[in-house]
Amino acid sequence: MSAVLTAETDVRAAMREIGARARAAARILANAPAEQKTRALIAAARFLRARGREILAANARDLSEARGLTPSYIDRLTLDDARIEAMAGAVEEIAALPDPVGRVLARFERPNGLKIERVATPLGVVGVIYESRPNVTADAGALCLKSGNAVLLRGGSDSFHSVAAIHACLVAGLAEAGLPEAAISRAPVAAREAVGEMLTGLDGAIDVIVPRGGKSLVERVQREARVPVFAHLEGLVHVYVDETAELEKSVRLVVNSKMRRTGVCGAAETLLIARAAVPRLAKPLLEALSAAGCAIRGDAEIRALWPEAALAAEEDWRTEYLDAIIAVRVVAGLDEAIAHIETYGSHHTDAILTENATAAERFLREVDSAIVLHNASTQFADGGEFGFGAEIGIATGRMHARGPVGVEQLCTFKYEVRGDGQTRP
Amino acid sequence: MSAVLTAETDVRAAMREIGARARAAARILANAPAEQKTRALIAAARFLRARGREILAANARDLSEARGLTPSYIDRLTLDDARIEAMAGAVEEIAALPDPVGRVLARFERPNGLKIERVATPLGVVGVIYESRPNVTADAGALCLKSGNAVLLRGGSDSFHSVAAIHACLVAGLAEAGLPEAAISRAPVAAREAVGEMLTGLDGAIDVIVPRGGKSLVERVQREARVPVFAHLEGLVHVYVDETAELEKSVRLVVNSKMRRTGVCGAAETLLIARAAVPRLAKPLLEALSAAGCAIRGDAEIRALWPEAALAAEEDWRTEYLDAIIAVRVVAGLDEAIAHIETYGSHHTDAILTENATAAERFLREVDSAIVLHNASTQFADGGEFGFGAEIGIATGRMHARGPVGVEQLCTFKYEVRGDGQTRP
Repeated sequence: MSAVLTAETDVRAAMREIGARARAAARILANAPAEQKTRALIAAARFLRARGREILAANARDLSEARGLTPSYIDRLTLDDARIEAMAGAVEEIAALPDPVGRVLARFERPNGLKIERVATPLGVVGVIYESRPNVTADAGALCLKSGNAVLLRGGSDSFHSVAAIHACLVAGLAEAGLPEAAISRAPVAAREAVGEMLTGLDGAIDVIVPRGGKSLVERVQREARVPVFAHLEGLVHVYVDETAELEKSVRLVVNSKMRRTGVCGAAETLLIARAAVPRLAKPLLEALSAAGCAIRGDAEIRALWPEAALAAEEDWRTEYLDAIIAVRVVAGLDEAIAHIETYGSHHTDAILTENATAAERFLREVDSAIVLHNASTQFADGGEFGFGAEIGIATGRMHARGPVGVEQLCTFKYEVRGDGQTRP
Repeated sequence: MSAVLTAETDVRAAMREIGARARAAARILANAPAEQKTRALIAAARFLRARGREILAANARDLSEARGLTPSYIDRLTLDDARIEAMAGAVEEIAALPDPVGRVLARFERPNGLKIERVATPLGVVGVIYESRPNVTADAGALCLKSGNAVLLRGGSDSFHSVAAIHACLVAGLAEAGLPEAAISRAPVAAREAVGEMLTGLDGAIDVIVPRGGKSLVERVQREARVPVFAHLEGLVHVYVDETAELEKSVRLVVNSKMRRTGVCGAAETLLIARAAVPRLAKPLLEALSAAGCAIRGDAEIRALWPEAALAAEEDWRTEYLDAIIAVRVVAGLDEAIAHIETYGSHHTDAILTENATAAERFLREVDSAIVLHNASTQFADGGEFGFGAEIGIATGRMHARGPVGVEQLCTFKYEVRGDGQTRP
């Protein structure tokens, strides 16, 4: 018992030490010139390529010790030459983004002559907790560095050696550019308590936590974190096909929204069809989905049209399948579609397909989701597709960041006020 | 024991019911036209004026039952005709602000033709917990309504009758404009457990908490809240007088920063003087402060110049006096000033007085505070002075809102994406 307590105390002390060093590094990073951060990132990408063999050897060791055996788990964990090149390329793309720090977000002059600017500054220290994907190390490290934030990375124990090898490349980049190595810190992976410690915020050393992984990880982080969290628990994404939707366009958009990749958070999970559109559109939509390999779970009206559909239960409207399954429901029209989304949705991404501009604008305004689309695939819910270069995740919370979280949303701001002697009366 | 438990259960159930009604009202408010919200506010101001006698009677009852007896406490609690007029005027000023909802914060077109807009939307439900000042009821209610948020107000038990009377005017305004009365809700003041319940977020019904009151209230809210908080614990505000500061300007700015009102969060608490400026500026600054009635607590160098100064202890650099007292320290120069502020400050508001543009820009960039000023009084740290119309408070956190929190920072955003059939390859 006392041995366990001692070990816990050790982890606590070690994590606080790491947190304090990250905080000190953040202060330096906040004022580092854009060029120095860029130099560190370009060097890191070079080290990732140069040390590809070492990274693959580390990854092979992780794979040989892997506990999970599902194909998707092994796929997430596995690195190869192409994936290392993709990681290095992503780091270079992030390096090439405009520097988000110091952007003037608003500027106004007061009647008394005071010039006030709202200026972007880094958030501070970002804690990233992830699971088996080793590439999160490079993505998250690069995004935080670009935005002037220190980062404390905590990868899953399954990817221990891969993460260590990738992390070493990032640190080598920092060192080459003369930036503090603690700017991209790594929690001791072996200690399971490290996650719990990070969720406390490490005595104020961590400003925000980003969980990257499955629903149980996100759920735990959202439940336990004592600091703000950028995350989405699930993407219960809807496509609503309105009365005036065009046939060919709708078929393309619904199939792409559902089937392009079924495992991503922007994949559609529920299809809502306006009753007035059913005679014209329902069959072609169901045929196309079916032909693409998607199983249909429909309400009674859908099953009347498409008998091989399973009957959707209440639970289906609440399920993020992340698979080739779609729940389909007939609704009276726009109001009922919005009400359904409000009741069952996850405020992530929702789309309307319509040629009626008024209906489209009402949907975009009234559906309270981070991303709302008109006549476009829900699979565009992605920071890269938004032009953010890359994203550290997609947030469905309402505070600070919402939707894809790129380097801009990894910043906060301050007010710079320039006067020439103004006193307040 | 079981009676107590039952009472607690009742409060919990009652608060959850109030929270659920506020959440439902927030959905309606989020899509209410600007004109309807304005109409409700103008009507509320009219009711405040028309029911002045009732409000004063309610206030007299609170005063007759008042437990605290310090003059500042009685002053905070007391209403009179002028204060009611000021409240009504503030509500009208908020009504006249541009509507913050629906502002396009960013707009970009992607190579595939997707048009993406980041559009301001309300946060949802704001919980405001305050103490003896009854006017917070009108200010906070109006700011939240203008920004499309529902608000759940919890005033102090000392101002129970005053708050109820003011709240009734706001509700009458909502009713006249056809908006749900639950948009401006009030927690049962008698139940002390109501605060604790609000800090849990009421099962997701509250998006953010704003505490308005003394340090012990803010401390409790920051410690216990399970939802985001917009607040500042204290304003440990510094004025740094650099080597090249102008004599007359510095004297005016230092005296105004400290003495205009000593009890506000933007009042200066510590004066740092560059050693090279001491021979020229220290005595005139200390003389002017002293003549204005300010007590000086200085380090050894200051006491050598100004023997009547008390010797500042380490604790003085950490003390928010909110009184006619100032701590004064001689520093080597800009670097030491920034280091002092980083060590002892509260990231609220800090100023540099200098005629050296390079020093000014370094200070503005490197001091990590919500508001940084060059050659202007720290007492400008105020939403009204920033042109925000009014503020619900000043935040020193790094998430979402920082500095004065006006109607713009009471909004979040969503991404509206308009396409014409784009699918993701």
